[in-house]
Formats: sequence, structure tokens, C-alpha cells
Amino acid sequence: MTDTVVAGRRAALALRYGTAEAERAEQAGELVWNEVLATQLAHRSVRKFLPDNVSEEQLRAIVAAASSAASSSNLQLWSVVAVTDRDRLGRIAALAGDQDAVRNAPLLLVWIADLARAGRIAEQNDRDLVNAGFVESALLGVVDATLAAQNAALAAESLGLGTVYIGAIRNHPTELAEELNLPAHSFAVVGLVVGHPDPTGSAEVKPRLGVDVVLHREQYDLEAQEAGTAEYEARISAFYREQGLADSWTERVVGRFATPGALGVREGLKEALERRGFDLN
Amino acid sequence: MTDTVVAGRRAALALRYGTAEAERAEQAGELVWNEVLATQLAHRSVRKFLPDNVSEEQLRAIVAAASSAASSSNLQLWSVVAVTDRDRLGRIAALAGDQDAVRNAPLLLVWIADLARAGRIAEQNDRDLVNAGFVESALLGVVDATLAAQNAALAAESLGLGTVYIGAIRNHPTELAEELNLPAHSFAVVGLVVGHPDPTGSAEVKPRLGVDVVLHREQYDLEAQEAGTAEYEARISAFYREQGLADSWTERVVGRFATPGALGVREGLKEALERRGFDLN
Repeated sequence: MTDTVVAGRRAALALRYGTAEAERAEQAGELVWNEVLATQLAHRSVRKFLPDNVSEEQLRAIVAAASSAASSSNLQLWSVVAVTDRDRLGRIAALAGDQDAVRNAPLLLVWIADLARAGRIAEQNDRDLVNAGFVESALLGVVDATLAAQNAALAAESLGLGTVYIGAIRNHPTELAEELNLPAHSFAVVGLVVGHPDPTGSAEVKPRLGVDVVLHREQYDLEAQEAGTAEYEARISAFYREQGLADSWTERVVGRFATPGALGVREGLKEALERRGFDLN
Repeated sequence: MTDTVVAGRRAALALRYGTAEAERAEQAGELVWNEVLATQLAHRSVRKFLPDNVSEEQLRAIVAAASSAASSSNLQLWSVVAVTDRDRLGRIAALAGDQDAVRNAPLLLVWIADLARAGRIAEQNDRDLVNAGFVESALLGVVDATLAAQNAALAAESLGLGTVYIGAIRNHPTELAEELNLPAHSFAVVGLVVGHPDPTGSAEVKPRLGVDVVLHREQYDLEAQEAGTAEYEARISAFYREQGLADSWTERVVGRFATPGALGVREGLKEALERRGFDLN
């Protein structure tokens, strides 16, 4: 049993961080591993699904997991819209980067930063939602919605389902809000497709930056990351090549943040959020 | 075995959603339950810890879980600063709402929306980080950091550790950045205290809004939430009274968002983020 556990941890760490980290962990001698960690380490994005439905009880279990995540001051400033209607999924796909994973989704969960519920409660108490316009308020909703989404993604994976996040749900916030009937003071932060993975689709565990690149001790250190970033560039390049993708991670970063216009329609997010009642003051 | 599983699910759902939802799930007949869901449902915020350290291998396992969460386009726009130095924890506590949970934390993880790494990579390629100023860019960092944080929180809990999120880490972003040596284009989204729970501390599973309040089908529905919100107000009131807290959830919501000045220093977050290189354009 312990041998199986040791081997499982070694394999999981090697896929994510390379063999050196897997060996380091083994030599450290303390075996920190369990079913939760194994499920988390095994995450991969699944984009091709069988036509089978996610059952009602699976959906409810996923949402129960989501709502068990922490929420700032227990305000619960989030909602989730579950979409399964094929026509609606087609229209949402057209608004969200035209991805087949959305168009053919067995289930699309749209995670909403939701101050509309607070607005209704204020109204019922003859009060105005005077604080929705602050950056902090939008952030409270975004963080609550994202904590919930990640619990949901892991819950789905623990049930043998596959998931992929859809950031492109932010491409056309105004049109999406119309499609989902989102009230003022709410907006879609991220989408999550859930379904039974099609075994013929490729979905591999993606290598990540080493633990020592993202983990800082006592204070942030930018220069200390350079060796680890170079190590990662070599490791992820081999992975990207196998996937038939452009092979440089650093070029991907430069392409996104150091190239004018690279954010495309999402440069308009500020104006779209203002129209949704988030002034970001 | 199955009897134990059924009873475990019933108890977990009842604590979170009340006995009606637990009974509904049982009558539905499909037993969706496992170790991951059980760990998620059992989440509670722990604010009192034993002096025992979180071990190095536990910390690395928590960060490995964090970095296995999805990341938009694999850009990995987050970092985490692990703080254990008692003097630093004291200074951070003073900046973050003066909470004993921070001052006495065995380990404080500060989750950073990090475009500084991208900035350094751009610089090494003789390019400028021209896209950091968009709302979308800050949001990418916030979502990445928050997905990572939630995987970390659950990983810690799966190891028998307790956690509590610290939103007050956003109270004084400029001073905190100085304390943590955060570079431009990075800011602290949320803190997470981790440690061995002190069994003499009170830490209960908190009831949440019912699944049918936060879960919408096909389209968002504000009015359909009203009955569920009233049901929750009654259920959470009983819980808050037991904890010796003000007993109305709706008053808590009104107090925060419909009361001028209720966000306090966090009304200044926009200006603080601008100083950190996030213009929110």
C-alpha cells in the first residue's frame, strides 16, 4: 500500500514539476499525500466530452462543494448559472471565443460576481446599494466567485468528470449578460465546462513553474526566480512540442503582455463593467 | 460501509444546508460522495492554532496543490509569500485588521496577483509590459491567485490543518507591499493562515444559502431567490446566536453595501492599486 502511495506521489509530482522535484520529495522522507492532493495534482483541462449528461445529483454536489468554500464575511457574493440548452450554448460559444468545448458542452457553469442579491436585499430594506462602485466591492465578488468555482472544478474531477475554465466568457460581457438575464451589479467572471471526458481527446497534466519559483519566503524575490524560470522554459517546451503548440512559454508571456492590442476585445472590460454597475472607484 | 457514507453525507449536508436538503439528497437515491467532497463540505474557518509548525513538506505539498489549479492560458500570474517570522507577522497583523489569527499564525500565506514576473520576462526580451494597465490584466492575476489559494486551503485541510482567509490583507496595500518587498505589478489579493487547529478554539461549519438560491438554470433569476433567502435568514440566525454574533445575515449585507463608509480604508484600493502599477484601464 505505502509503495503504491509513494509511486503515485512520485508520478504526480514528476508530471507537474519534473523528476528532480519528485526525487527531492522522496528523499525528504515525509510522505505528505492523500486522495485530495492526488485529485488536485491530477488536474488537466478536458476539452472533448462524451454526450452523457452530468446528473442532477452530481450538479448539486458540485454546487454544494462550491458554496462550502470560504466567503468574505459570509456575504456569499456569487451565483452560478448552469447552462445545458444547446441553442443557448451555441450563442454563448459565439460570444466566448468560438470554442467547441463550449458549443458542445454537456454542462456550462458560469460563475457570477453577484452584488445583485445584496442590491435586492438593500431594496427590501429601503436602502440603496451605495458601496457597489468601489474596486474592493468588485474584488469581493470576484474572489468569492473564484473560490467557489475552484471547489466546483475539483469536486467535478473527484467524480471522474472533466473540466475546462473559459476565460473568454469575459469577451462580450454586455451581450452575455443579456443572454443569461444577469441583473445590474452582477457579471460573469469565468466559465467552467463540465462533462464526462471523451477518452479519444488529448488532455495531459501540464507542467508548471517549480514550487521554488512561485513560493517566496518572508519576502518576494524577483531575481531568485530567474534560474527556475529558465528551467521551466526548457521543461514546458518539451511538453508544448509534444502537443504541437508553439514551444516557448516566455514568448507566450511576452506575446500577451508586451504586445499592444494582445488583449483584444477584453481591453474593453472596464467599460463593460461600468455598464453592469461596477464603477471601479 | 455504505451506511457510514450515507450518514456522513447526511450530516455534512445538514450542517451546511439544513436537514431538508440532507433528506432531499437521501431520497434522490443517487449517492454522490467521496473523500474530496467530504473534505470540502467540512470546511470551517479556524482562528486559534497550536504552536506547532507546518512542516516544509506540508508547505510544499500545499503549494504543489495550488499550482495544479487551472491558470488562464498557463500564464501563472500568481505567487505566494510564506511568512513565519514572528516580528513580521506582528507588523502584518497591524496592517491587516489587528487579528490574533494573523499575529499568532504558525504560517501566513499571502496570495499575490503577480504580473511582475511577466514584467521581468518582458524586460529580458527588451520589451515593455504595455498591457498591465487593463482591468482584464488585474483580473487575470486575481483569478489565478484565487484559484491557487483555494486549492491550497483545501490541501491544508486534507492534511488535518486549519485555515482562515484574511481579506484584511487588502487594508493597507502600499505598506504591506513594502513589508513583503512586492515589486511593481504585483499586489496581495488575500491572506491564508494555516496551522494545526487548537481544539479549545470554536470553529464550526457555517450554514450557507441553499443550493437553489445560488444555482440558476439557464438564466439568472433574482426573484426566485427570495424564498430561499428568507429560509437562510432563519437558519443562519440560529447559528449566529449560538456563536454570540449579531443574528441577521440580511442586516450584515445591508450594513456592508448600503451604509456609506462601511468599506473603510478599502475604499482606497483603487488608488493603492494604481501605485502598484495596476491602472485598471
